[in-house]
Amino acid sequence: AEIIFDQTLFGIEDMTVKEEQILFPMALDKLTDAEWYEISKQSLEIGFCLYDPPTEWRPKGIEETSINEAQKSGNHIQLPSGGFSAAELLAILNTLPLDMTFVDKDDKVKYFSQGAERVFQRNRAILNRDVRHCHPPASAHIVDKIIDDFKSGKHDRAPFWIKMGEKMIYIEYFALRGEQGEYLGTLEVSHNIAPYRELEGEQRILSYT
Amino acid sequence: AEIIFDQTLFGIEDMTVKEEQILFPMALDKLTDAEWYEISKQSLEIGFCLYDPPTEWRPKGIEETSINEAQKSGNHIQLPSGGFSAAELLAILNTLPLDMTFVDKDDKVKYFSQGAERVFQRNRAILNRDVRHCHPPASAHIVDKIIDDFKSGKHDRAPFWIKMGEKMIYIEYFALRGEQGEYLGTLEVSHNIAPYRELEGEQRILSYT
Repeated sequence: AEIIFDQTLFGIEDMTVKEEQILFPMALDKLTDAEWYEISKQSLEIGFCLYDPPTEWRPKGIEETSINEAQKSGNHIQLPSGGFSAAELLAILNTLPLDMTFVDKDDKVKYFSQGAERVFQRNRAILNRDVRHCHPPASAHIVDKIIDDFKSGKHDRAPFWIKMGEKMIYIEYFALRGEQGEYLGTLEVSHNIAPYRELEGEQRILSYT
Repeated sequence: AEIIFDQTLFGIEDMTVKEEQILFPMALDKLTDAEWYEISKQSLEIGFCLYDPPTEWRPKGIEETSINEAQKSGNHIQLPSGGFSAAELLAILNTLPLDMTFVDKDDKVKYFSQGAERVFQRNRAILNRDVRHCHPPASAHIVDKIIDDFKSGKHDRAPFWIKMGEKMIYIEYFALRGEQGEYLGTLEVSHNIAPYRELEGEQRILSYT
């Protein structure tokens, strides 16, 4: 037991030294205020390990590109079957009882929804990343196969379902197509379907959850 | 039996006369080309009864307000967790495996999705209509109650489920809220959950549907 413990201790100390002597000084040297601000905002989604800052930090001169920007410019989004403001769209996408991740036709992750009941955590570091770099190498060939088949028009959807404790996670990939059937990208949709499987009878009267 | 048949026959004849002598002449007199064009486009969604026109009709001088308009203006929609073009958003919303209808904070129907597997048919005549006028009078008090409770912040979601033949239709109403928790509207989400209830085991390997 002591042999394992010694090795673990050495491993931790080694990592700490590398972080303190190499990673942090280099990061302080190389990263800009704007990049640190992005890291700080994404930390809120990922959670904190050793230190949770009690105050919000915002460097001077950094422009916030939030939903408010889109709102200020009076951004109304008109689709063939109606429309909404950017704030309304944001609320709709984040309220839907499922998680979405959108990969564009060039295989780059372009959007993910931020619902309250997310099955898989996502953080903004994945935006603009190639989708193949978002999966473990062991499953990269499946990702490749799905995207190839969607691009060639051979298939349009690929479902998976997995038990995770009490949850039954349903993950489905959909080919997105334009008006002429051209490939626009892939949508990953995942949700816990266990509640749907446990329903009994009908519920026709109003009863809140 | 003859008494019933006579009455039905009289009812049909009476309706036909009213249509031909009153409704159609008045409609021809009152409606503009743009309005007839809207009716013609919506007819495609509703389906045809007596006559299905073999050619597409488009009156001169009518501007088409489709997704292409939004595209031409280079409409990129930026949200806090990524973004998409209008064409991409349209494909995403219509590919999601559920139907959505969005009612804004003033109780007006503003948008509905046009997925391939829609549970309930919607047509564009409902856009901008008060949501209370989209339901049979018998259920108007339920609509009122849900909207009141969402507006007051008392509740956030109201689920219903109904058996329809082989289908199990799950209908859920969600309160949409802005960053400060303010009421932005109500989202109706409905889908057939029967397939989720029939799944067995797990599906971890790639197999298309």
